[in-house]
Amino acid sequence: MTAAVLANNLWVLLCGLFVFMMTIAVGLLEVGELGERVVGSLVKTILITGLAVLVMAIVGFNTAFAPTVGGIIGNPLYGPGLFLGGFSPGIADSWWSVTGAGLRTGTYFLFETAFASVTLALVGVVALHKMKLSAFAIYSVVYLALIWALPAAWIWNPSGWLAKLGMVDFAGGLVVHGAAGAAGLGIVWQIWREEKARGLKVSTPVPYRVNPGWLTLAILLLWVGWFGFNPGSVLAFNDEAIVVVETTFVAAAAAMVSTSITSYLLTSEIFNPLYVVNGILMGLIVITPLAGFVSPGSALILGLLCGPLFVYAEKFVGRAKFMSDPVGLFPGHLAGGIFGVLMIAFFAQNQFAAGSGFPTLPNGVFFGGGGAALKQLGIEILGIGVSVVVVFVLSHLTVRVLAALMRGITTSYADEVETKTGMPAPLV
Amino acid sequence: MTAAVLANNLWVLLCGLFVFMMTIAVGLLEVGELGERVVGSLVKTILITGLAVLVMAIVGFNTAFAPTVGGIIGNPLYGPGLFLGGFSPGIADSWWSVTGAGLRTGTYFLFETAFASVTLALVGVVALHKMKLSAFAIYSVVYLALIWALPAAWIWNPSGWLAKLGMVDFAGGLVVHGAAGAAGLGIVWQIWREEKARGLKVSTPVPYRVNPGWLTLAILLLWVGWFGFNPGSVLAFNDEAIVVVETTFVAAAAAMVSTSITSYLLTSEIFNPLYVVNGILMGLIVITPLAGFVSPGSALILGLLCGPLFVYAEKFVGRAKFMSDPVGLFPGHLAGGIFGVLMIAFFAQNQFAAGSGFPTLPNGVFFGGGGAALKQLGIEILGIGVSVVVVFVLSHLTVRVLAALMRGITTSYADEVETKTGMPAPLV
Amino acid sequence: MTAAVLANNLWVLLCGLFVFMMTIAVGLLEVGELGERVVGSLVKTILITGLAVLVMAIVGFNTAFAPTVGGIIGNPLYGPGLFLGGFSPGIADSWWSVTGAGLRTGTYFLFETAFASVTLALVGVVALHKMKLSAFAIYSVVYLALIWALPAAWIWNPSGWLAKLGMVDFAGGLVVHGAAGAAGLGIVWQIWREEKARGLKVSTPVPYRVNPGWLTLAILLLWVGWFGFNPGSVLAFNDEAIVVVETTFVAAAAAMVSTSITSYLLTSEIFNPLYVVNGILMGLIVITPLAGFVSPGSALILGLLCGPLFVYAEKFVGRAKFMSDPVGLFPGHLAGGIFGVLMIAFFAQNQFAAGSGFPTLPNGVFFGGGGAALKQLGIEILGIGVSVVVVFVLSHLTVRVLAALMRGITTSYADEVETKTGMPAPLV
Repeated sequence: MTAAVLANNLWVLLCGLFVFMMTIAVGLLEVGELGERVVGSLVKTILITGLAVLVMAIVGFNTAFAPTVGGIIGNPLYGPGLFLGGFSPGIADSWWSVTGAGLRTGTYFLFETAFASVTLALVGVVALHKMKLSAFAIYSVVYLALIWALPAAWIWNPSGWLAKLGMVDFAGGLVVHGAAGAAGLGIVWQIWREEKARGLKVSTPVPYRVNPGWLTLAILLLWVGWFGFNPGSVLAFNDEAIVVVETTFVAAAAAMVSTSITSYLLTSEIFNPLYVVNGILMGLIVITPLAGFVSPGSALILGLLCGPLFVYAEKFVGRAKFMSDPVGLFPGHLAGGIFGVLMIAFFAQNQFAAGSGFPTLPNGVFFGGGGAALKQLGIEILGIGVSVVVVFVLSHLTVRVLAALMRGITTSYADEVETKTGMPAPLV
Repeated sequence: MTAAVLANNLWVLLCGLFVFMMTIAVGLLEVGELGERVVGSLVKTILITGLAVLVMAIVGFNTAFAPTVGGIIGNPLYGPGLFLGGFSPGIADSWWSVTGAGLRTGTYFLFETAFASVTLALVGVVALHKMKLSAFAIYSVVYLALIWALPAAWIWNPSGWLAKLGMVDFAGGLVVHGAAGAAGLGIVWQIWREEKARGLKVSTPVPYRVNPGWLTLAILLLWVGWFGFNPGSVLAFNDEAIVVVETTFVAAAAAMVSTSITSYLLTSEIFNPLYVVNGILMGLIVITPLAGFVSPGSALILGLLCGPLFVYAEKFVGRAKFMSDPVGLFPGHLAGGIFGVLMIAFFAQNQFAAGSGFPTLPNGVFFGGGGAALKQLGIEILGIGVSVVVVFVLSHLTVRVLAALMRGITTSYADEVETKTGMPAPLV
Repeated sequence: MTAAVLANNLWVLLCGLFVFMMTIAVGLLEVGELGERVVGSLVKTILITGLAVLVMAIVGFNTAFAPTVGGIIGNPLYGPGLFLGGFSPGIADSWWSVTGAGLRTGTYFLFETAFASVTLALVGVVALHKMKLSAFAIYSVVYLALIWALPAAWIWNPSGWLAKLGMVDFAGGLVVHGAAGAAGLGIVWQIWREEKARGLKVSTPVPYRVNPGWLTLAILLLWVGWFGFNPGSVLAFNDEAIVVVETTFVAAAAAMVSTSITSYLLTSEIFNPLYVVNGILMGLIVITPLAGFVSPGSALILGLLCGPLFVYAEKFVGRAKFMSDPVGLFPGHLAGGIFGVLMIAFFAQNQFAAGSGFPTLPNGVFFGGGGAALKQLGIEILGIGVSVVVVFVLSHLTVRVLAALMRGITTSYADEVETKTGMPAPLV
């Protein structure tokens, strides 16, 4: 390997490892917000981590990243990806779509598998205390093999139909955060249907029981994970990858301050740990789809916008009576992710995008992009619309089928049993 | 340094850091399985970490990795390893046995010290609640300077007698896991002798008190650590190192699923956190000795074999009345490590082994190895037999001497004191 | 980028990430020593992390590292550092003072920001349970923009007046640890003034409530962080960076053993977790200012000196009635940091210093440095004296102003509220 190929593989592999840690960090976040004895959170995220590696190694890496069938889905039988090449992989071969940077199949596999895994972990936050873990495990297999793969195949796979239209989504404002929100909505709706059938008027809220140690550890691991998530998404170790470290960290920090101040102005409570932590997360989510396209100065502005965005999104979403969203999937990931994708058309600067591998992305509206920027906005909106609808529908259909097979997906007594015994309730 | 030497040192150094974290992760695993207030677990693993660095820096790195005296033990007075070169190390020199990859002494030292440390941490799981910490500290010094060094000098040191016979053990199925099991057996036997002398009929079991947060964090750190453990054991950053990421992660994931299903079939309890976590560990242990010799396809098969292997090994071992093995050293590390070493003769493929630095390793039985594979099996069995016996005997002799000097190595009241006060009991 | 520039940026960026984790690890250390429900510890360190990134990105990186105005302070308006270059940074440009290694602005920014952040976290340990968090947040902005920057601009910035005199401080014995102690003293004095005004005769001690899990995790993260802290401070990935891994780890291990034995000889209590952990920290602190200038042999000796140093420093400091220092800022960081800086003049060896970028540093007294070493000692003492006084005065003035504006900086009831509710007390 040349020096550049060595550096690219080393970088993306290590970034993949940092992202890999985020799935379990999501479990720790739940525990940090909802109480220490949430066994289900932890078993769930360990399970997701393992299932993601297994399903992606067998077929999911192909359905997302193999050369697509008509731009719609990766060829599941593509040799280098099927069982990771089986008994005779080409160990010195780069994966077809990242040969420019010389990324080996194993490097790219670990990186993207970690993304699929953490997306599913985000979907899973709405399952907490409410959905049978066995149902969620089966859902996970479908999700990893098919549902996650579709937006990835359309947007991140260069042979996908949206990628060919010119849609970009740097590190997954839509492919990860938006899609997780849409998939979660598909589950929440089914939970609400079952709760309504049991006579409930409002979806039972899961109470907050802040555990500061786990909450802190979760935010630390998530921030470290995002060091892999965004800078690694350049898929090479070059000058732009270093700029992405700046844009990512600055947006997170600015959003923390902005969210703290916004919540202080509204509630006169200052430094509520939930807002401090969610502020950081909101900054990281919003910058994700454009971290590789913007300057540090723009990242600062985008971070400052996050405070009002999160606080109002939370207020608005919090009113929906059918919502079972204990750790803020919808106001945070769905709203934040989509907002970030839309901002591409306003804040992008071609000089940065070129370093991330998108030399044809036009400047945004604020940087003289004009008509080209508005056209880009249209493409992004199209991609958001199609992806959100398809993911929502497939996710909901999956849980409907599971509900029919398993006499419902919800479990109303898990939490009580768990709290009493410290061991998971019977989950079948 | 050339690009390749830079990449090799950077890779092995970072992998060493990840492995370094595993010692303390073993302490967190104990806490996760046996209860949160186990101060002794944590002090023990911090102590092991520090002692490992110190003893290895003074002499242990030499006894394992310096040019051997007659193939038996590394020369303790070899200049570059004694006190790490003292006041005038050759700072630009590679360690003699890894000059091919250009690994500097400091790089190789950190990596192997982390291995010695985590091996001792595994031995130490049987000491929990039962062995005086002061006795274990003295045992640790002997272990690091001598007992750990012997299999390492024989198998991993190219001048060792087993290495010269052709024995291989990629990342330590025998040198780490098997040897830890054998050493632990030497301690457990002495604990049982003292318990019998106090009139006990059965070794007092240490009760499970699952703490899901620490258990989850432990498995996360161990999995991340194994990213260093196996891929780093190529001792270079090359194409094969990336394949080892695949084999390691796939085996872990497959074993998690296989163990969960096996335990469900036997107990109809699903997603017990202890089985989910132990499944992952079992996959990682079994793949360790051959991760650098096999394809991703074989890793998947090996992972699937782990479920039945672990569940039955645990059942079998659990019957022994003299066993004090709260977190599964014997069914997990001893059985799993040795099983993995034996599988080398069945699953190895020369094309992978060559990338790991073993171009003469024959294909396994399943890949047409025939007679050469059977000969390899014989060599591996010989190495296992000699290593397990020698380590067991030396470990047991060490604790016998300590027991004579300290009026026994067991402490019957530590746990109670600790539980009440939250501070360690007097341990002298 | 050339192979060396790739390796240098990759190394320093990753080391920066490890150091970045240390700020929050300090919060976990507080929780590990003082009790699990200390919400304030965690909110405080998350807040510091975010503020550090934001303030450094806007101006603090410049005040410390831009070309200085007369050797006193970095030019706050230096283009590449102001808002990290704003909307059009030179993304392929190295920062002016580290062009030799080719470190990009983003690389150097992340690394040094992590240092500023963890220094402030150390200052913040004295604020625990006593200082209003809102006052500490405002203090933090002043600290990051000005107080931290001054010693950094004088010593680490090659255009600083102390650097030009020949003062060296490898990874921050004075710039980080000594300065944190001096700044903390400025706060503690004000706390004591307010406590006295309330009629107290002795500063209320904060009681120890060891939580072994968090304490262990904290020491693990801090040790891993120090892998970035010291070896990264070579600001390049070269042979010397690998030697610094050796000196750092060996000093920590030797200090752990030395502190355990010293405390055993004095109290006949062995393996007190607080001493084991503080021993490791003391070794890491003492080696910090000279890790890149000494041999592994010298590091071992320096580590062994730490036990008596820490135990006596703690005894001496513990007597001061005005001290509010729950986790040992003064005996550990202030005394240890300054001791380490002084040892430069005794243990330095030019062959190592050259690899760290200081080819003109003379050998120490113990290595034949003679008059040149004594002259170096004088320079170091001068730098310590000026830095400690200036930082102390500025820190104290800042809290005096804040006390005038906010009717005192102390809060006497925060802890009680926090303990009862598990949520932070009103801190405005």
